[in-house]
Amino acid sequence: MSKNSTPWIQIVTLTPPSLKDNTADADRLISALKTGLQTDAVHLDLDLLKALPDLLRKWEYSVRCFLFKDRHRWLVTGIAGVDDPRPSAGLAVDLGTTKVVLRLLDLSDGRTLGESGFDNPQLAVGPDILARIHFAETPGGLQQLNALIIAGLNQAVQDLCRSCRLDPQDIYTVTVAGNTAMTHLFMGVDPRWIIREPYIPVINKPGIFKAAELGLQVNVGARVFIFPNVASYFGGDLIAGIFFAGLHKLSDTTILVDVGTNAEVVVGNENWLIACAGAAGPALEGGMTKMGMLAGPGVVDRISINPDTHEFDLHTIDGGPPKGICGSGIIDLAAALFLSEMIDIRGKLVPAACGKHLKKIDGLAHLVVVPADKSATGSDLTISQADLDSLIRSKAAMYTILETITTSVGITLKDLSSFFVGGTFGSFIDPRAAIAIGMLPDLPLDSYKPLGNSSLGGAALALTSVDFLKEIDGIRDRITYLELNVNQDFMNRFSAAKFLPHTNASLFPSVKILNVTDLPPDAYR
Amino acid sequence: MSKNSTPWIQIVTLTPPSLKDNTADADRLISALKTGLQTDAVHLDLDLLKALPDLLRKWEYSVRCFLFKDRHRWLVTGIAGVDDPRPSAGLAVDLGTTKVVLRLLDLSDGRTLGESGFDNPQLAVGPDILARIHFAETPGGLQQLNALIIAGLNQAVQDLCRSCRLDPQDIYTVTVAGNTAMTHLFMGVDPRWIIREPYIPVINKPGIFKAAELGLQVNVGARVFIFPNVASYFGGDLIAGIFFAGLHKLSDTTILVDVGTNAEVVVGNENWLIACAGAAGPALEGGMTKMGMLAGPGVVDRISINPDTHEFDLHTIDGGPPKGICGSGIIDLAAALFLSEMIDIRGKLVPAACGKHLKKIDGLAHLVVVPADKSATGSDLTISQADLDSLIRSKAAMYTILETITTSVGITLKDLSSFFVGGTFGSFIDPRAAIAIGMLPDLPLDSYKPLGNSSLGGAALALTSVDFLKEIDGIRDRITYLELNVNQDFMNRFSAAKFLPHTNASLFPSVKILNVTDLPPDAYR
Repeated sequence: MSKNSTPWIQIVTLTPPSLKDNTADADRLISALKTGLQTDAVHLDLDLLKALPDLLRKWEYSVRCFLFKDRHRWLVTGIAGVDDPRPSAGLAVDLGTTKVVLRLLDLSDGRTLGESGFDNPQLAVGPDILARIHFAETPGGLQQLNALIIAGLNQAVQDLCRSCRLDPQDIYTVTVAGNTAMTHLFMGVDPRWIIREPYIPVINKPGIFKAAELGLQVNVGARVFIFPNVASYFGGDLIAGIFFAGLHKLSDTTILVDVGTNAEVVVGNENWLIACAGAAGPALEGGMTKMGMLAGPGVVDRISINPDTHEFDLHTIDGGPPKGICGSGIIDLAAALFLSEMIDIRGKLVPAACGKHLKKIDGLAHLVVVPADKSATGSDLTISQADLDSLIRSKAAMYTILETITTSVGITLKDLSSFFVGGTFGSFIDPRAAIAIGMLPDLPLDSYKPLGNSSLGGAALALTSVDFLKEIDGIRDRITYLELNVNQDFMNRFSAAKFLPHTNASLFPSVKILNVTDLPPDAYR
Repeated sequence: MSKNSTPWIQIVTLTPPSLKDNTADADRLISALKTGLQTDAVHLDLDLLKALPDLLRKWEYSVRCFLFKDRHRWLVTGIAGVDDPRPSAGLAVDLGTTKVVLRLLDLSDGRTLGESGFDNPQLAVGPDILARIHFAETPGGLQQLNALIIAGLNQAVQDLCRSCRLDPQDIYTVTVAGNTAMTHLFMGVDPRWIIREPYIPVINKPGIFKAAELGLQVNVGARVFIFPNVASYFGGDLIAGIFFAGLHKLSDTTILVDVGTNAEVVVGNENWLIACAGAAGPALEGGMTKMGMLAGPGVVDRISINPDTHEFDLHTIDGGPPKGICGSGIIDLAAALFLSEMIDIRGKLVPAACGKHLKKIDGLAHLVVVPADKSATGSDLTISQADLDSLIRSKAAMYTILETITTSVGITLKDLSSFFVGGTFGSFIDPRAAIAIGMLPDLPLDSYKPLGNSSLGGAALALTSVDFLKEIDGIRDRITYLELNVNQDFMNRFSAAKFLPHTNASLFPSVKILNVTDLPPDAYR
């Protein structure tokens, strides 16, 4: 048996049977694999058994075996001729509440073959997990939600395969990373107890299933690994992120933060890992702002403001005329407004500095970011004082969570040698802007390491790593989950973080701080 | 966790979840089972995961778990409330070429709940394995044969359950023992290479499957263990027989013989096992005789002949008027004819002694066993000289096989402390008759131990034994399979065994031997 560059494909050359060695076909193959893989447990499915005698004879007892590894045994997911030109592919899935992203890999060398994404079809039922779980409790609701995501995946797999000149039958292994509720909905398992005290998932370590029993239309022998979750609010997407960032293998203590409506945070090193999750509010993603939208063409993602002229310099995705602003744009905007003194340290609009940008709509103060004649929508793109207040609360919540988790293990944010920012959204945040508003700590800029889609990255990494399951189980079991108690300590920290960048200016030496006494007496509240 | 009398049911009382212990439902259950069973591998199916949260809450976290044990992990096949009155049953199946026998057991105490049998529906396609394998090679043939046996089993399971006031859903574990070809047809796996040199089964150690994937309509979580085979002509029914007889655990060397068209023989002890299989011909089962038939009402199963009057004393099953003779009756008949000197040591009819019983039909010598006026058919029940010749060849083949296998390990038949006779047919053979014709060796009568349906017995035993798989794998792997070479040695032994009881009279001291010179000159040939 010779070894390929990845462990999931083994070329096996068997001695053909004879009267002197009449070992059965399957036992002959399993025995060779046991020797080659140095294991005592190799499993063949019934479907493969049915095809085996013809295949072995057709290929004269030389075959490529596609493999996957469960906790206690190796699984043969398929076999092919040694010279068969058909590839064997693995599929990594980031199962997001809003967006689902797929990456196809060549199992023989780990090379990416293609990638695609689609809006989670469950959005039609409910925009968030809470709405979907309530829907799942109605008769047939769970089955409907499950059918939506499975059908969506099957269609996306078909399309992605076609664009890569593959067939879904060429997919032998699938890895899926999603939050706890999405994982449950993907498996068709009742999520209702996730949102009810004491917040109990049905399963934390789903492990490996047959693709067919989950309804995935890939090779009949294909297996699906589902990332484990730590708790109801700390899911497999985050475990995948840790696995991808490699936090659990570093001697230095580092942090991984997934920025979004929920802030999920892990701090640790090769010896320990502590995690927590808390609501930061949708403001960070632009969700509460009227002009906020998901990243896309014409969406503002970078803003700077001339501190003297207070002119706005906008950058939109693809360069088109602006039609809205995405999460990273909102953070940029807030930072620019603060640094140009158009908002004060409480985040209140300063009329003297805002000047012509200021406008009252329905009696509420708004800042015009893009005037109607320059916007793609033909209307002003504005941000209100209420939007800004909500952004301040969100950034304060984020910083408070970061402070709380580090304090809980007796370190400060300054002790972190690297700051991994996970999630697609987080990767677009400009750390300078996030530091300026005191959302992220004032660390050297090079310690910020955006990971891109770390959930997808972890899922893809699992497809090329022979001991992924042991390593991922190890991460999961090593995590101490910290319940965030909103007690007096937390509230004190939160109140202190509700200023720009913070009441304790010494925490943000690199940010130019206005003096509280500079506040104009007529600041809008 | 408390233990029941069998290992397959565990009562688990879990601490209900709380904010301080928010372990997921499945992980909570698995963790308790791991502790109770002292294992690191417990598997739950997706179907059970879907039902689990409701069931655990309904039963307030106290459950009965139904279990089975694969090679590398414990499987949870179902769960029920602690006080749920529904039983949990196991099903043992003897998957015979001709007849299929089922036994239902209560998994909680191993008690037999019921038993039934039915003719293998594949008989409609072909009477024997060879015909069926040829049929399996025609388009759709394999699927048809598989569907026949699965449908037959499902019907029989339903009927047996009804008669025991159970539901097929109450069956959580199934064990199946059959010969290699029947095992393949049961699994729907191609048997064609079994009958072609070098005689290669698809699989020797099928192991454990989901009942649902085999098409068996029992509980959705039920598992099926299929007994392993040693080779194409030494199947799982015989491994089950060894497991049942306990040959592999005895310090004395003993023998197990399954008497039939094929004679399958195992010799060994706790240290070694050697097996062989050879064609004895259908004569031993009465298959070649016109009056031969399977055991049933009105079938002659015991015969004695008054040595002075040459009057026949017949015994029929259920006492009805005779309509045919079964295998054990044929052996009795041959022994009685020999001991009353109506046939000579070559098995030839002796006209002087046969007298009025003798009749020529189409120019061939026949012995009338039951005259037309006493038979249920209204015709004479007869046995021809050709039938007797064929019986002599069969008994000689059987004895030769026994001699060959013992010689191969350097012992004689006299060294065997016990002689287990397996199979339903074998159990009805009167050892005195079999010794008289030299079919079985002249051992003390109490060393003969009929096992009844040893294949079914082994399958049932596996349902109550926690380490059955390890033990059965151990038997299978320890067996040395002896290919019977029909060489000069074998032919010499065969020629010597073609006399009644044997040319070497000293081998059969308990049998009264005629002198060869007593042969009448006009003996029919």
